[in-house]
Amino acid sequence: MRIATFVAGGRRQVGRVSADGRQVTPFQLSSEAAQCGAQPLVEAAARGQPLPALEAASLALASVKLEAPIPLPRRNVWCVGRNYHAHAKELAASVFKDNAANVQEWPIVFTKVPETVTGPYDTVAMPGAAVSTQIDYEAELVVVIGRGGKNIARADAMQHIFGYTICNDVTARDVQMRHQQWDMGKSFDTFCPMGPWIVTADEMDGRKSRVRCWVNDELRQDAPTENMIFDIPTLIETVSRGITLLPGDLIATGTAAGVGMGFKPPRYLGAGDVVRIEIDGIGSIENKFA
Amino acid sequence: MRIATFVAGGRRQVGRVSADGRQVTPFQLSSEAAQCGAQPLVEAAARGQPLPALEAASLALASVKLEAPIPLPRRNVWCVGRNYHAHAKELAASVFKDNAANVQEWPIVFTKVPETVTGPYDTVAMPGAAVSTQIDYEAELVVVIGRGGKNIARADAMQHIFGYTICNDVTARDVQMRHQQWDMGKSFDTFCPMGPWIVTADEMDGRKSRVRCWVNDELRQDAPTENMIFDIPTLIETVSRGITLLPGDLIATGTAAGVGMGFKPPRYLGAGDVVRIEIDGIGSIENKFA
Repeated sequence: MRIATFVAGGRRQVGRVSADGRQVTPFQLSSEAAQCGAQPLVEAAARGQPLPALEAASLALASVKLEAPIPLPRRNVWCVGRNYHAHAKELAASVFKDNAANVQEWPIVFTKVPETVTGPYDTVAMPGAAVSTQIDYEAELVVVIGRGGKNIARADAMQHIFGYTICNDVTARDVQMRHQQWDMGKSFDTFCPMGPWIVTADEMDGRKSRVRCWVNDELRQDAPTENMIFDIPTLIETVSRGITLLPGDLIATGTAAGVGMGFKPPRYLGAGDVVRIEIDGIGSIENKFA
Repeated sequence: MRIATFVAGGRRQVGRVSADGRQVTPFQLSSEAAQCGAQPLVEAAARGQPLPALEAASLALASVKLEAPIPLPRRNVWCVGRNYHAHAKELAASVFKDNAANVQEWPIVFTKVPETVTGPYDTVAMPGAAVSTQIDYEAELVVVIGRGGKNIARADAMQHIFGYTICNDVTARDVQMRHQQWDMGKSFDTFCPMGPWIVTADEMDGRKSRVRCWVNDELRQDAPTENMIFDIPTLIETVSRGITLLPGDLIATGTAAGVGMGFKPPRYLGAGDVVRIEIDGIGSIENKFA
């Protein structure tokens, strides 16, 4: 099932996208619940309850404005750094210079504030040259946690996934580097476009997909998720060690090679650039930078 | 004014602590608003509105259970690392080993998940030896942001402070180190005891205070906040660069020398240890580790 959050008739709604991708049928939700996007559906599923019933009438998908599936997550988005070997190599002299001998036993985990999340086709606001001159893209598969838990074993981890979506983990490289810890350079307003919807875990296995990213129609990133250094079950096991994962938690699983900083000279984003990310089995997001 | 969140009669309330510290008078708040602790008061003040009226009757402070002033912040707690010179020195060979030549031009900023926040006298749950064997304390002054904003200038920063409180930025050193980014080793459940209340900014200047920390009655940390490497206005300017600060955002301003990891050999916390943190002008928090 594809679950989308959207605005139609001036109000936020949550709906099921039809198999042909042309229609969306709203779930029966209070306005208050719909404000939280897919979050109440994730929580219902986590409690073992059925999803809400659908309205009788559908809307043409082309007539609605898609938003991020969970427009304002209830805490920072979890993100994984350095999770594809080729990407680790391309940034070995900069972001990952402290990884002695290029060895890494544990995932690198940081966060982005909830307010970075914006819609799948929304404009990303560049913060201005006084704040950063090195804006970069990172195409990523996002895991949406369903049933929460602490100290989740690797073997049980896939059962805690509600579904998958796409994000661009937009990064200000200069800010990321100078503060040593990355949260700030990853957390500028609108720096996490997400969507276009959640594909539920019964219809997709995020461990076997393919992520591609284009900048102005030039293919920059292209990798199978099988190439992750730490696979999805390991990431869930790691993040839940001592920390209770909650329904609706989002884990961006890291990016592949081909980011702007990896080129010589680097190819950072400028105003007017358009970044499109496609993940097999989900769809695509496309964001203009301004 | 001292604003406390507490439980009395089985429900969460928010009140004003009397000058002698013996009474607390509840604000007139709906149950729903009171669930968010002092957050609605911070938001009212940020809008330029008066605080809610007080109830007629007061309660004995000794008869209520104090909670963290904002029991569940709406996004991760901002935290500052390496913000006192003597502390930078004591961990120069471990946590801060990548600071070339011990120089640092920019603050280090990371986060703790909202669910780390627990009450000023609550027990901190150690995660078990399988997860961490290096649990450490960090006594810190916390700035509570009032009026939000983006790209706040240093000169205007103090006007964005609603008040101050205390936290223990409890840290699993082994987890902090092995993941390179610190959010995980700082984010275990209950790893941010906070309180005992917010002292509003009209009654206190956090730039001129004193932070002390005792472990089982042994004084371990003792430093004036004047010793911060990056002062409070600089921290607010830094965190708000490109990122909209929001009313109720919490910024833990870093810890002084004397943490357990700084001893040779290190003196980590064990079950039964009690950590007490006192900040002049605020009061104290005291938490047992179990």
